[in-house]
Amino acid sequence: MTEQIKYLLDEKDIPTTWYNIAADLPDLAPLMHPGTGAPITVDDLVPIMPEAVARQELSREREIEIPEPVRQIYAQWRPSPLFRARRLERLLDTPARIYYKYEGGSPAGSHKPNTAIAQAFYNHEARIRKLATETGAGQWGSSLSLAGALFGLQVQVYMVMVSFHQKPYRRLLMETYGARCVASPSLETAAGRAILAADPECTGSLGIATSEALEVAMNDPETNYAGGSVLNHVLLHQSVIGQEALAQFAMAQDYPDVVVGCAGGGSNLGGLTFPFLGEKLRGGRDVRVVAAEPAACPTLTRGKLAYDFGDTAGLTPLLRMHTLGHSFVPPSFHAGGLRYHGMAPLVSAALDANLLEAVAVEQSRCFAAGIQFARAEGIVPAPESTHAISVAVQEALRCKEEGRSEAILFGLSGHGHFDLSAYEAHLGGALRDEGVDQTRLDAALAQLPALADA
Amino acid sequence: MTEQIKYLLDEKDIPTTWYNIAADLPDLAPLMHPGTGAPITVDDLVPIMPEAVARQELSREREIEIPEPVRQIYAQWRPSPLFRARRLERLLDTPARIYYKYEGGSPAGSHKPNTAIAQAFYNHEARIRKLATETGAGQWGSSLSLAGALFGLQVQVYMVMVSFHQKPYRRLLMETYGARCVASPSLETAAGRAILAADPECTGSLGIATSEALEVAMNDPETNYAGGSVLNHVLLHQSVIGQEALAQFAMAQDYPDVVVGCAGGGSNLGGLTFPFLGEKLRGGRDVRVVAAEPAACPTLTRGKLAYDFGDTAGLTPLLRMHTLGHSFVPPSFHAGGLRYHGMAPLVSAALDANLLEAVAVEQSRCFAAGIQFARAEGIVPAPESTHAISVAVQEALRCKEEGRSEAILFGLSGHGHFDLSAYEAHLGGALRDEGVDQTRLDAALAQLPALADA
Repeated sequence: MTEQIKYLLDEKDIPTTWYNIAADLPDLAPLMHPGTGAPITVDDLVPIMPEAVARQELSREREIEIPEPVRQIYAQWRPSPLFRARRLERLLDTPARIYYKYEGGSPAGSHKPNTAIAQAFYNHEARIRKLATETGAGQWGSSLSLAGALFGLQVQVYMVMVSFHQKPYRRLLMETYGARCVASPSLETAAGRAILAADPECTGSLGIATSEALEVAMNDPETNYAGGSVLNHVLLHQSVIGQEALAQFAMAQDYPDVVVGCAGGGSNLGGLTFPFLGEKLRGGRDVRVVAAEPAACPTLTRGKLAYDFGDTAGLTPLLRMHTLGHSFVPPSFHAGGLRYHGMAPLVSAALDANLLEAVAVEQSRCFAAGIQFARAEGIVPAPESTHAISVAVQEALRCKEEGRSEAILFGLSGHGHFDLSAYEAHLGGALRDEGVDQTRLDAALAQLPALADA
Repeated sequence: MTEQIKYLLDEKDIPTTWYNIAADLPDLAPLMHPGTGAPITVDDLVPIMPEAVARQELSREREIEIPEPVRQIYAQWRPSPLFRARRLERLLDTPARIYYKYEGGSPAGSHKPNTAIAQAFYNHEARIRKLATETGAGQWGSSLSLAGALFGLQVQVYMVMVSFHQKPYRRLLMETYGARCVASPSLETAAGRAILAADPECTGSLGIATSEALEVAMNDPETNYAGGSVLNHVLLHQSVIGQEALAQFAMAQDYPDVVVGCAGGGSNLGGLTFPFLGEKLRGGRDVRVVAAEPAACPTLTRGKLAYDFGDTAGLTPLLRMHTLGHSFVPPSFHAGGLRYHGMAPLVSAALDANLLEAVAVEQSRCFAAGIQFARAEGIVPAPESTHAISVAVQEALRCKEEGRSEAILFGLSGHGHFDLSAYEAHLGGALRDEGVDQTRLDAALAQLPALADA
């Protein structure tokens, strides 16, 4: 080839261990029990997850072995390709070298199977028969449905109401894999019924759907909960992305100056960027990390770092994280995977330690960047991923202005095949950029649990 | 890994030439001019396609060089993976070794970009500004839209009415790439208006949509026609699939006993199987080739081998092919890419020379196999591809019954992300298997052009 545009690794190069940044981050705050005020233990978690996963959640070990059956399934689409976006570079006429790590080649179309497969494996080993979960845009729900099909587990998904209606094909994908998918808030749980009683028009949120899934898992000993983001073990499993990218940059004889990821709950951002931050924290090369979050749910840029619940009903342990308040319901924008009030504690700690920067982007700007990318590079990105593209384009234009040839890496966390109604709305001029109502945000922040100030 | 499930090639292994089976097939009938009754020449074709493509259409050379800019774009997703379907094998408890060549990893989600990129390249070189085409399920239309975006060509797509309504996301994909997509029959062309005048409820067909696209290309010197199947040059461009598969079987130290492809116009079938048939024709290893076609449009199993038009209005040259008659409008089943009255002349000649077998399959059986495959292997197949899966499963069960360990290769021509409403209909029990009305078929066959008996 005249120009190299793709960096592939062999399947033997699939990482053999997950990287746990908790080993390298200073002063991580523990998960806290809301009742006792004491740090959470493995015993507190085993009613809703396998012991192996609970241990990973609390682990401070740097490397945790990936079970061979998980690597075997990863091998279907991993190592995922690292692409050089040469056509986009030419379009932008930038001296920057733009790379993207593409996770849309997984059977469910996003990075989510990296942890779904692992969690289904451990639950299967623990002889659990059913998993309950929440999903926003449906990337996580369909990934867990896929994993459930491969390991013979029943999967029950609570899908945020607004996305359930915006993205009917995501529900159909889950059903094709054999899962059951319900719009949330639903009448199936006490949490859902309480929300609907208070607000029959509620469009739902990831926090509400999480409460519903947790309630089901807590009330049925044969059902466990499986989380798609936020939690430490989820970010751990996603570290295969960044570890592979490090090896691929070595192949390319290059190294990123900036790494950009979209940030909703933090699993894509953490998975891509933590292995690079780990290098830096252990004395390796410096790198800028940028989190691209939606302006309509600006957890990192306008939230408070405090102890808060991960769900709306307050069923989770307390997590020290950037939060808009667990009662905050974001406006109904199209990147449903980013409509979460909080942020992974590990990402929050990294921001607090000045290891990353955060930028909030309006959705119309993201879709414009997504279409520019699709027409130049051929891949239609998920609305979530367009946040990273938008910031990467901005960085490439800064390089042009400053005459600098930097290497920019962004995470293309998934494709947008199930999100085309959002593109239609954008192309038809029907997308509005909704900001955050400061009064509602203040009200939600005022409801942070008492431990917030501990 | 414990088990190898994926055979990847390096990008330097992308074929450097396309394989033209016309060099190895005996007694190929020429394309005929319906007016003069003489064989078609390059000059007859250049009003609607670049000279380079017209020469390929009529070529009898075995190997035709792939231009470097085309290989450069292929490199984004090619060589495509060959997978071993070990989980499906275990589910079926068969001694057969099942392999599939997966083309769904292309940015448009099917094998169609293999020729779309090539045709857009040659049109761009010939300074053409606009391409007109037809599409069934939308795989071809979205692939040409992608190719148009990459080469700066406007693309105008006539999409078969029934698929236009069944698969709205395919239209949105084309629009996201910047193309224009219209339901066919439309009021924009004389052909469309005539059809609608005769039958205002017409659900459309690939033959009708082709007439509309051809009419536009014939009437505008800046617009060319680009075909997605049937034509010799399309099958030529698709030969990268089978050539790569041959190299991948060498890696696997195996060789297929049976190769199965779904057959609509014949481009996926020809692309996958002709390189294997070429080996056989030149004295190499024997192989069974099976074409899986829809029972509702049984061109190979119930059509007549005759000269017929490729489109409904009779604007194409006459093609010697298996045909149900160019006025035949197939029932509205869900594999819209297979709803075509004819079959590629090269595939028809191969069937006539007993180089391949044909099987017609009911759609409900195909969807059942598709769901079985999705839950075992993780990938949700396009409805077209489920025809091949259904036959491959049948072959694997035969192997089980006969206690034979054969190697079965099938073409997984695309994913089903845009076809999930069809899966919903199947899961909800709402799919009917429509057969072919013999009276209507007889009537269509009675309208074959006079040259049919030449």
